[in-house]
Amino acid sequence: MPDARLDVWRGRIDAALAQALDLPHAPRRLNAAMRHAVLLGGKRMRPLLTLATGALFDAGEIPLLAAGVAVELIHAYSLVHDDLPSMDDDALRRGQPTVHVAFDEATAVLAGDALQSLAFDVLAQAPVAADVALSLVRTLAEASGAAGMCGGQALDLDATGRSADITASALEHVHALKTGALIRASVRMGALVGRADSRALQRLDAFSLSLGLAFQVRDDILDVEADTAQLGKTAGKDAQQDKATFPALLGLEASKLKLSRLQNQMQSALADFDARAESLRSLANYTATRTH
Amino acid sequence: MPDARLDVWRGRIDAALAQALDLPHAPRRLNAAMRHAVLLGGKRMRPLLTLATGALFDAGEIPLLAAGVAVELIHAYSLVHDDLPSMDDDALRRGQPTVHVAFDEATAVLAGDALQSLAFDVLAQAPVAADVALSLVRTLAEASGAAGMCGGQALDLDATGRSADITASALEHVHALKTGALIRASVRMGALVGRADSRALQRLDAFSLSLGLAFQVRDDILDVEADTAQLGKTAGKDAQQDKATFPALLGLEASKLKLSRLQNQMQSALADFDARAESLRSLANYTATRTH
Repeated sequence: MPDARLDVWRGRIDAALAQALDLPHAPRRLNAAMRHAVLLGGKRMRPLLTLATGALFDAGEIPLLAAGVAVELIHAYSLVHDDLPSMDDDALRRGQPTVHVAFDEATAVLAGDALQSLAFDVLAQAPVAADVALSLVRTLAEASGAAGMCGGQALDLDATGRSADITASALEHVHALKTGALIRASVRMGALVGRADSRALQRLDAFSLSLGLAFQVRDDILDVEADTAQLGKTAGKDAQQDKATFPALLGLEASKLKLSRLQNQMQSALADFDARAESLRSLANYTATRTH
Repeated sequence: MPDARLDVWRGRIDAALAQALDLPHAPRRLNAAMRHAVLLGGKRMRPLLTLATGALFDAGEIPLLAAGVAVELIHAYSLVHDDLPSMDDDALRRGQPTVHVAFDEATAVLAGDALQSLAFDVLAQAPVAADVALSLVRTLAEASGAAGMCGGQALDLDATGRSADITASALEHVHALKTGALIRASVRMGALVGRADSRALQRLDAFSLSLGLAFQVRDDILDVEADTAQLGKTAGKDAQQDKATFPALLGLEASKLKLSRLQNQMQSALADFDARAESLRSLANYTATRTH
């Protein structure tokens, strides 16, 4: 991410997350587990998308940070629950032991639950007009729920172990929910804080649809090509678990071609925006070319 | 609950819950698990509290139902997660197999997560002014999170297996969070929909504090005195798991005395309200005397 603004924003996002997770009335161990889940790393892709989208409309940074924090808390809780033994059963995340390993399984369930509540609490207190705050709550709740992220994870679990039965378009649908819904919400929330008109909302939605898919295609390619140290999570796990992935379905070269087509789609969706879209363009580029 | 209005409300709450859980865009199995968690029984105590409190201020039934549905969805998700093998490990709830038994553990985690998202989605779409809806989101998020219900469950798990170390006031604190926070929120949300003034909010908060504690004291007494068929969940489990309970700490007779003191406190907190408080009085009475 060569855009210097993104580094500045990342620092502010980390500070805002730390502040949101300073919970003097929470049991200490539960709060520690929540902090472990959120503060020990992470690229902050989703809040960066919120801030970069808001910048298109000169929206205020403080309300954008509230929206970005909320979306990152949802993302972090979903990782805690996805890593549980009954789900993906992973011991390593962002180069650190996962929450159920560092604490215990019950605490991991509860920390995830409490992070979700906190996300909506943060939105309810965001310094924006009440109608905007409500539209943020609705956007995030729908993206997180049964017709969004949770639904995608359920479909993904159903498909694990029977990769031969899955078509590429079914796989796209799984990812449109599992990772795509929250990425779309991140962009949309930035636009809502900026009070974008419906035409801009539509273009940004086209952009974020391609972005979400590009993110997953790149993730699948990395799982094949990168090693565990580079990823900060267990590499080669998709093949080991017989998960359907784009490289497994289409081949590695065709997956890379797909990714470059998605890059073109993202650039044209942003074509009509002015120089204020530079950070968003950097994020799109980074998503398609990242090495971890 | 001899109040006929409560039966009418319960029917409307069940209908509103069924409608909220009709999710055509969710994966079918996940949606079935969510419906199993919510629609197969339950006394609907919390939404009844919301409706009965709203009735004090002649608030509209449709917005009260939205608030009540949201609070019941949070309650239902918490039961699904509390029943997980890594938490209380219970196979029976409301006379039915728990969600992880009827489906599987991963689906139970995800169904709980999606129910929580749905609760906030319902509030974001409630037919009330935006500022009221936001105050409902905030009230429910705080009651559900690390300084509320999730925090209480974390403290309760910490205390399990070492009942000898717990004092009665520490136990009250656990329950003030674990069950009390959501019961207080149920009452408060009814009052917020009714645009109650701060004096009324204060009295109702005193009422619901006593109500939450009475609920738990009665629950502990029932766990000693009732059988599994009567409860629809495993009886005698507290003693078996060496959980701190009021009967274990204070004795059965002192616990019953405590309950009757709490009944008096509830009645005096409601003393200044007029006949519109009858349903709330019935609910208070029922809580302290229920047999399941």
